[in-house]
Amino acid sequence: MNQNTTLHVFDQSVSLEPAGADTFCGRTPAAYANMVGPYGGFLAATLLNAVLLHEERQGDPVSMTVNFAGPVGDGDFQVVASARRTNRSTQHWNVELSQQGVVAVTATVLLAVRRDTWGDTEVSMPDVPPSESVERIDAGQYLAWVRNYDFRVVEGHFDPAGGIEANGDSLTRLWVRDMPPRPLDYLSLMAISDCFFPRIFVRRQQRMPVGTVSLTTYFHADRDSLARQGDSPVLAEAHAHRYSRGFFDHTGKLWGVGGELLATTHQMVYFKD
Amino acid sequence: MNQNTTLHVFDQSVSLEPAGADTFCGRTPAAYANMVGPYGGFLAATLLNAVLLHEERQGDPVSMTVNFAGPVGDGDFQVVASARRTNRSTQHWNVELSQQGVVAVTATVLLAVRRDTWGDTEVSMPDVPPSESVERIDAGQYLAWVRNYDFRVVEGHFDPAGGIEANGDSLTRLWVRDMPPRPLDYLSLMAISDCFFPRIFVRRQQRMPVGTVSLTTYFHADRDSLARQGDSPVLAEAHAHRYSRGFFDHTGKLWGVGGELLATTHQMVYFKD
Repeated sequence: MNQNTTLHVFDQSVSLEPAGADTFCGRTPAAYANMVGPYGGFLAATLLNAVLLHEERQGDPVSMTVNFAGPVGDGDFQVVASARRTNRSTQHWNVELSQQGVVAVTATVLLAVRRDTWGDTEVSMPDVPPSESVERIDAGQYLAWVRNYDFRVVEGHFDPAGGIEANGDSLTRLWVRDMPPRPLDYLSLMAISDCFFPRIFVRRQQRMPVGTVSLTTYFHADRDSLARQGDSPVLAEAHAHRYSRGFFDHTGKLWGVGGELLATTHQMVYFKD
Repeated sequence: MNQNTTLHVFDQSVSLEPAGADTFCGRTPAAYANMVGPYGGFLAATLLNAVLLHEERQGDPVSMTVNFAGPVGDGDFQVVASARRTNRSTQHWNVELSQQGVVAVTATVLLAVRRDTWGDTEVSMPDVPPSESVERIDAGQYLAWVRNYDFRVVEGHFDPAGGIEANGDSLTRLWVRDMPPRPLDYLSLMAISDCFFPRIFVRRQQRMPVGTVSLTTYFHADRDSLARQGDSPVLAEAHAHRYSRGFFDHTGKLWGVGGELLATTHQMVYFKD
């Protein structure tokens, strides 16, 4: 698609070309390759991008649910974004990614024009060492997409080489930002909301076939929050609730500068042991 | 719709009549009336029912996201459920409820045929007094839909009469079951996942205009869990994360007999103060 090499790898990867009413074309990027197909966070951001590029778009993201229905292969894909209902201050979208006519990803997105109200946060950012004092993980051990992030794991690491003993819980806290650094926007925040290694890897300290089946992110950050964040690292934390009969869920929080809760994020994941 | 008075009010209310390919007809029930239109949990269960009644259905619910896009008025509505992708063991659905051709609710549903795996729960049911030792709330003070539930608030009550002082957090724990009692199934579990009074009412101990805009529930319960549960009360807990510029989110857990985590549930809510 976009061959402009001055663009950040993330922007190159999520770029879409208009292709008729409600329709955009994209291409699977090698840079975000995961176990099967591309990194889910890249796909989520790409579907969100279709909404944000759409001429009917009204407002900024408030919530997004992405369902990973089937593998996305190399090559071109089509994204169809349709506004299902537009109110005075909110707008609901359906989005679908398909390849050769087969649906691979579905999503719903809520946009809103936000206004000032009373506000508060009932949870606090955990007290962790600053990003620069934590060692960056060696992305070379992991899949391609990991190389586009600077990951610094504060606690709850997964070591594919088996060097960590499983300890009965799956809580991870890590610093993350795009690599090379890139100012945070809704697209990269959506992508980062899927950045957690599968909780079952951390919990059991072993790899197994897994795949997120549904991911929901709630955006608390407004444009001012994003401007304050710039390209500073985000503190991401997540833990699982229950693993049962082939699926587990996790819940996570993404914290920004000054301890601001930028987003909360939840997912259900398939696993095979 | 269904005039069979031997049916439970919930089953009467969520009943649908087939009306052509992928399409069902329903009717807004007075029994589940809320501030504006019917109780969101009723709507969520009705959209799920369209999937479960569909002849292409394969498997049981694993996750559901419901987006409340606009008000649902009295009278008839149409629900269209379409399978977007069917895999060997999973199936992804889009569902939409409309009235007079205007979309009011959208949803995505993931079904799966579950199989045995390793399992564990990383969180514990809180230690609370048994349901029968907690006083049932006087539903007469509240909206119509509340009368179809037996609610017993253990902590974090909301008193519309102003008798409780706001205390800086929104955590609620309550026992809930259908009234009259009804064995739990996926439909009623989905409905109950929306049973929480808006967190901002609890947090600020005052009413204001609110409405859930997006609700996601992950089902951990399988058919055996539901059979064990029967019509016993569910312990429901929820707390908010952040209130900001017209929206807040909450996260919740639904616990069953023996401390089994039946479902986790999350939502984003609009408010106007």
